[in-house]
Amino acid sequence: MCVLDIIHICEKYPSEDTDKRSLSGHWQRGGNASNVCTVLQQLGAECEFLGMLSTAAAFKFLQQDCTERNIHIENCPMCEENPPFSTVILATNTGTRTIIHSNRGFPILKFQHFQNLKLNNYKWIHFEGRNVTETSQMIWEIRKYRKQAKDRGEESITVSVELERLDMDLLALARIADIVILSKDMSEFLGWSTRYEAVYGMRQSLQDLQDAAKEIDEKIETIPSIVCPWGSEGCAYLSSDSSYGSFLAIPATTVVDSLGAGDTFAAGFIFAQCILNMDIKMSVDYANQVAGFKILHRGYDMIKKFQYRKT
Amino acid sequence: MCVLDIIHICEKYPSEDTDKRSLSGHWQRGGNASNVCTVLQQLGAECEFLGMLSTAAAFKFLQQDCTERNIHIENCPMCEENPPFSTVILATNTGTRTIIHSNRGFPILKFQHFQNLKLNNYKWIHFEGRNVTETSQMIWEIRKYRKQAKDRGEESITVSVELERLDMDLLALARIADIVILSKDMSEFLGWSTRYEAVYGMRQSLQDLQDAAKEIDEKIETIPSIVCPWGSEGCAYLSSDSSYGSFLAIPATTVVDSLGAGDTFAAGFIFAQCILNMDIKMSVDYANQVAGFKILHRGYDMIKKFQYRKT
Repeated sequence: MCVLDIIHICEKYPSEDTDKRSLSGHWQRGGNASNVCTVLQQLGAECEFLGMLSTAAAFKFLQQDCTERNIHIENCPMCEENPPFSTVILATNTGTRTIIHSNRGFPILKFQHFQNLKLNNYKWIHFEGRNVTETSQMIWEIRKYRKQAKDRGEESITVSVELERLDMDLLALARIADIVILSKDMSEFLGWSTRYEAVYGMRQSLQDLQDAAKEIDEKIETIPSIVCPWGSEGCAYLSSDSSYGSFLAIPATTVVDSLGAGDTFAAGFIFAQCILNMDIKMSVDYANQVAGFKILHRGYDMIKKFQYRKT
Repeated sequence: MCVLDIIHICEKYPSEDTDKRSLSGHWQRGGNASNVCTVLQQLGAECEFLGMLSTAAAFKFLQQDCTERNIHIENCPMCEENPPFSTVILATNTGTRTIIHSNRGFPILKFQHFQNLKLNNYKWIHFEGRNVTETSQMIWEIRKYRKQAKDRGEESITVSVELERLDMDLLALARIADIVILSKDMSEFLGWSTRYEAVYGMRQSLQDLQDAAKEIDEKIETIPSIVCPWGSEGCAYLSSDSSYGSFLAIPATTVVDSLGAGDTFAAGFIFAQCILNMDIKMSVDYANQVAGFKILHRGYDMIKKFQYRKT
């Protein structure tokens, strides 16, 4: 989604029932998919955002910011409603980011909007895990296209799904993706307390879903690769062919801005796989390093200076 | 001021470093003086807001809301900057309101803007305690006008000043007002831990300032009346002629929305004094009752149904 982030930078996280002035405050474009595009573009990929946008005058700057950053938005449907918004409180003493989302029934992206895309223009399509009914139709459409492309000897499309919202139903989307990016919050919600438990637990859940679906649904040949960023402890992955690996987080002396670190990880992984053609292990290492670099800088603009060091 | 309030209603106040969805969220016009106008208008007074407004398209609704509510804004200067904004987190389990303000150098109201007013149109002028240099010139201008009006046998203007910002320098404005509305936060900042201590402490401070100023500044005949709302414990006052009184807060079984309770108190007091011609004791009782009524209802619209019961 493409939403409004209202950011307050405070000396410390405010106690309940107080009335305080922040050190500074500003607004910026936010939303997971929208942030992933920002980072991909900084890293050097050409990319497109597809999601509902608002025609409300107050929010023209969201679209302007995409256009100025060369993020394609020409296929986005538009509506008159105000977009969802989030307040983000960054505490300078602890480096934490506390987020409160509000969404008052903003229209969702429908399968019909997705059908306007010419799929042969894309190498990778990344989905936020939400709106299972619509999104699963989109992924099945890509799977159908891939079969035909394969027959024609054309390039394929990789599908990744990010699981961040705490919603069990989203596993139905993960099952039909190639890559699952699983958040720590969602892992804990599903009962897994380490990154190791998380990737193996998710693999088992997807295998179970697969087994249950086989009879009634289209057969899927492989189980997705699972990638799992785990905050300040690092990240882990379990590939489609069962190789497991993990990386420690890059040590950060001063966390300047942890907002969007997860989106930066996702974008880093996609960039490493899709543009740099790295294998999964190296791609996770790359993602981990970009995210570690990002939190040392305010916003996303410094990411273009990121340099990967092979571990 | 007239600012943007971004409101999130949450089940409970979010813990630091979490990422949560609110029960609902919306935007509304806020700012102390702007809220005082809303309440005065609901109670039935004709009133005007004077403060810097923004021409930015995103904030047209702030002006529209004033106009729809018949709050005069025709004397307001305009600028191109985005207005200050505040995030307000209302917790439904505790009834608290936590506020974070951000102001990125929005231009202030200057004495020259105030000089455009025709003072014979006003019976009462209420000031937010801020920008001492500019605001004190405005109050002295009113004092000058009052002398001339008295000579001509015309009606006078009462001046009230609200002390909410934690800034010692604002006492210079309080000294030259007729009524000082002193917040609990400011009282505690000045070292007073009860409403009784607060009103007597403030009187002494103003007397000291008066004594120090007499030689170099224009003489002021009377010490202002001091009115002090004290949250859930009620309020107190100490009149110009030294009569002290206090009221308990109206018992509230369920606090629905405590945002703007202080502004409602101030508006109630002004309305009781200026429109209902009540004495100070009854006016404080009236203010206390309106504020107690307000927190039982979301927003300000129900205030028009408020009915005062003589204690």
